[in-house]
Amino acid sequence: MKTVHQVAYELLRTHGMTTVFGNPGSNELPFLSQFPSDFRYILGLHEGVVLGMADGYAQATGRPVLVSVHSAAGLGNAMGVLVNATVSHTPLVIMAGQQTRAMIALEAQLTNVDATQLPRPLVKWSFEPPRPQDVPAALARAIHTAMLPPRGPVFVSVPFDDWAAPTEDSADHLMARHVTSVGAVTDTIIENLAARLATARNPVLVIGAEVDEPGSFEAAVQLAETSRMPVWIAPSPSRCPFPTTHPLFQGVLPFAISRLSAKLTGHDLILVFGAPVFRYHEYLPGAYLPESAHLVAVTSDPAEAARAPVGEAIVADPQLVLCQLARAVAPSERQLPQPRPRPEPATDRSAPLNPETVFDVLNEVKPSDAVIVNESTSNTEFFWQHMGFDHARSFYFPAAGALGFGIPAAVGVQLAEPTRPVIGVIGDGSANYGITGLWSAAYHRVPATFLILRNDEYGVLKWFAGVLKATGLPGLDLPGIDYCAIAQGYGVPAVRIATRDELAAALVRSIAADSPSLIEVPIRSVG
Amino acid sequence: MKTVHQVAYELLRTHGMTTVFGNPGSNELPFLSQFPSDFRYILGLHEGVVLGMADGYAQATGRPVLVSVHSAAGLGNAMGVLVNATVSHTPLVIMAGQQTRAMIALEAQLTNVDATQLPRPLVKWSFEPPRPQDVPAALARAIHTAMLPPRGPVFVSVPFDDWAAPTEDSADHLMARHVTSVGAVTDTIIENLAARLATARNPVLVIGAEVDEPGSFEAAVQLAETSRMPVWIAPSPSRCPFPTTHPLFQGVLPFAISRLSAKLTGHDLILVFGAPVFRYHEYLPGAYLPESAHLVAVTSDPAEAARAPVGEAIVADPQLVLCQLARAVAPSERQLPQPRPRPEPATDRSAPLNPETVFDVLNEVKPSDAVIVNESTSNTEFFWQHMGFDHARSFYFPAAGALGFGIPAAVGVQLAEPTRPVIGVIGDGSANYGITGLWSAAYHRVPATFLILRNDEYGVLKWFAGVLKATGLPGLDLPGIDYCAIAQGYGVPAVRIATRDELAAALVRSIAADSPSLIEVPIRSVG
Repeated sequence: MKTVHQVAYELLRTHGMTTVFGNPGSNELPFLSQFPSDFRYILGLHEGVVLGMADGYAQATGRPVLVSVHSAAGLGNAMGVLVNATVSHTPLVIMAGQQTRAMIALEAQLTNVDATQLPRPLVKWSFEPPRPQDVPAALARAIHTAMLPPRGPVFVSVPFDDWAAPTEDSADHLMARHVTSVGAVTDTIIENLAARLATARNPVLVIGAEVDEPGSFEAAVQLAETSRMPVWIAPSPSRCPFPTTHPLFQGVLPFAISRLSAKLTGHDLILVFGAPVFRYHEYLPGAYLPESAHLVAVTSDPAEAARAPVGEAIVADPQLVLCQLARAVAPSERQLPQPRPRPEPATDRSAPLNPETVFDVLNEVKPSDAVIVNESTSNTEFFWQHMGFDHARSFYFPAAGALGFGIPAAVGVQLAEPTRPVIGVIGDGSANYGITGLWSAAYHRVPATFLILRNDEYGVLKWFAGVLKATGLPGLDLPGIDYCAIAQGYGVPAVRIATRDELAAALVRSIAADSPSLIEVPIRSVG
Repeated sequence: MKTVHQVAYELLRTHGMTTVFGNPGSNELPFLSQFPSDFRYILGLHEGVVLGMADGYAQATGRPVLVSVHSAAGLGNAMGVLVNATVSHTPLVIMAGQQTRAMIALEAQLTNVDATQLPRPLVKWSFEPPRPQDVPAALARAIHTAMLPPRGPVFVSVPFDDWAAPTEDSADHLMARHVTSVGAVTDTIIENLAARLATARNPVLVIGAEVDEPGSFEAAVQLAETSRMPVWIAPSPSRCPFPTTHPLFQGVLPFAISRLSAKLTGHDLILVFGAPVFRYHEYLPGAYLPESAHLVAVTSDPAEAARAPVGEAIVADPQLVLCQLARAVAPSERQLPQPRPRPEPATDRSAPLNPETVFDVLNEVKPSDAVIVNESTSNTEFFWQHMGFDHARSFYFPAAGALGFGIPAAVGVQLAEPTRPVIGVIGDGSANYGITGLWSAAYHRVPATFLILRNDEYGVLKWFAGVLKATGLPGLDLPGIDYCAIAQGYGVPAVRIATRDELAAALVRSIAADSPSLIEVPIRSVG
């Protein structure tokens, strides 16, 4: 009979899960022993980094990914960055090693006490198999659960001694299973949506992270062009689901209730695909929608549909429905909306540069297929004004705003997209939550570029303190950190640049390189 | 009427909780605004570091400590290192900012969704006050709960807008409360224990972390000397509760069932104070105790008492009971036990040094009141053979083995013990889980010494893989990291030493300095 170890790797191979992200501890050694040569193990020096790399990789491939962490300590370390994966519906199969079965009840050192409780409420499913021979089916179920809508992270705790145990049978039936979810809607629903769109006076399309995929990305363009409607990205975006260079693109909706409603004034039909309604942040109360506007949202997440304070919701596959609707709508004769106003090019040339300038330069030099992982939270407004994207899967941001995602996710996305240049745009505050991700880039020769925007402060908090008129706040300054020295300490060559021209040259060099590099650019402070 | 903000700070001041450890986010700004000038805010760049610093500070002061973290992301980041605080019964009051009340149900960005669930099962109590005016009583309850036996971390989630709300009354009644637990036992119990000790043929004392406090530390010596019994430290120690330089000290008990039992062979009475029975790690089954031995354990933790597989248990204050018993026992005429065999001094002089040599040198040069925070997990056996301690509160180790404690805890302990030299002995693998703690040391001018033992590997895992005869393991090597460059990047002067003499000189310099410094010492590899 096969061992649990053998069957587990066969199962992972069947699902194409041969890139494993992890940080090992003693409980995980039996799983990792005889690690197959057709698998690769991407090592992170902290489990937050491991999770962030896996999140980037899973989002950029659209596939489930195994994350191997150590007991309660490793799972706990991963739980900050895991908040992003929960919100972004990333299909992560997180597996923590448990103590040997005979010592769990004793709460021996390195026992994950009440293991299935620990990752809640951040995972869809949390399980510790009652017997060793239940491990293969538990893993299979975890993979299917992670991938079924709404996708999201799941957790399995596997005791130390289970891996060597024999399975009950060949487990061929597990390998042979295909579990898919078909979230198309009926023709009636499509016809109804198309008819409402045809008769709407002034419809608008709002696009969310869930439809930033090849196919639906292009379908959104087709739908907007055919219906001649303006397009917004839903607030607090973690992906870029629409080409921001397109003349129909209006920008990112504001994340405050009254401001968002004001932006949509005049529209009678609001179609939302692949976003919650809505991911607000700042509290400015008011009407959720302009008067007499109708909203229809298509989402894969029943909880998002139920929770929305306003509008109709259809729980289905928003990518599929978007494609269905794009094919069904008749060309409209509506007047084309005005393109959004574009900012003047930023003109300053010397340190500290304005963030607008940094984004202008980056936008000029980046190839059109470049991928940006953004974790510069102080400058998101400038970012969207100055950066252009016209391919699917070109932008990633921590979906829950949990910092420590940027550097690791850039590594993960670059591993998933070896032919596209990946640039992490990381605020200096953000960088420190996942700094050891630089070592993973160096060790695994992942040729990402890390652009550190340094203002020696938590700029977004200073901005928000200004909004609140809050004063006398401790803990908002981060002086005296040399990111180049740290990067070099982790094996990543680094350069500090001062001028616009130096920045452009450094970016061109880094993007062309076949190994990672870091660029530290001092930017104007908010505070 | 006062605001919740005012009353909260008054309450914290009443409890002496004026050193706050934190990492801010937008939800926390209303709490942190107008931060009082008699408080200090110790900033960590990652919440694992924040938690580790607070854990060290709370353990070294024996007082409750406030930890301020940001929503789900910050709390999640803290949860790896929090596993240690759970096991070490550290009285931490963890407070995370919640979104504004009006947007919690909308699950707006930065909402801590199902906040009270998130830190479970690692906290004793988890609460989100239903109304703003309940916040002061919730904080008071949190402080009392953290400090009542068994001590341990608690969690309170406070919505953004609660701080400006008026309180219901002056809250003077909260300030005036004193809540104490008196865990002494009756004279009958003490007389019974003393009688059993007097008539025992060959008793032994086993001492755990919970009695490493001034008073009980000395009482353990008095009890052992009066009763002429050998003393062991309980397995997997996170503190040093007995002077290791004392002739009655036998060492640290092994963390495997059969080996531990073998070490206690010949004893008819085993007295355990302040430790679970027992904190095993490696699984080597066998009898829990030598045949016909009787075990009596005194612990403050009902769960530990109930869970122990063997022996009698008394739930009481082990520090108090130790003092009570030390005063009650009559001098014994038993033959004194043999002192433990001492290793030869280590003699190698050049890089890579043996870890034994490093510990010999450290032991020679450290002042007698020095405090060691140890997170060199590969070398714990050598550590206990070569290091001597003779004061209470001189040694700290991550109680659950959750790495990322060492560097931060050294900062926290040094803040708590400004007059004692604090040296963090950190394995290179361990260092990366809490590396940004170096910046907190530099920023707050905390004069701790960080001694990085560098072997470019997860040495303890290679050792354990050898025990398991596991091969073909990925992820056990950490080459190419320059800890000096990283330390300098975070503002901590650093030196790499090669020889024994250089190590001694560097340690003397660092210990004398009034600012932090790091010493990187290459050590012999396990693998």
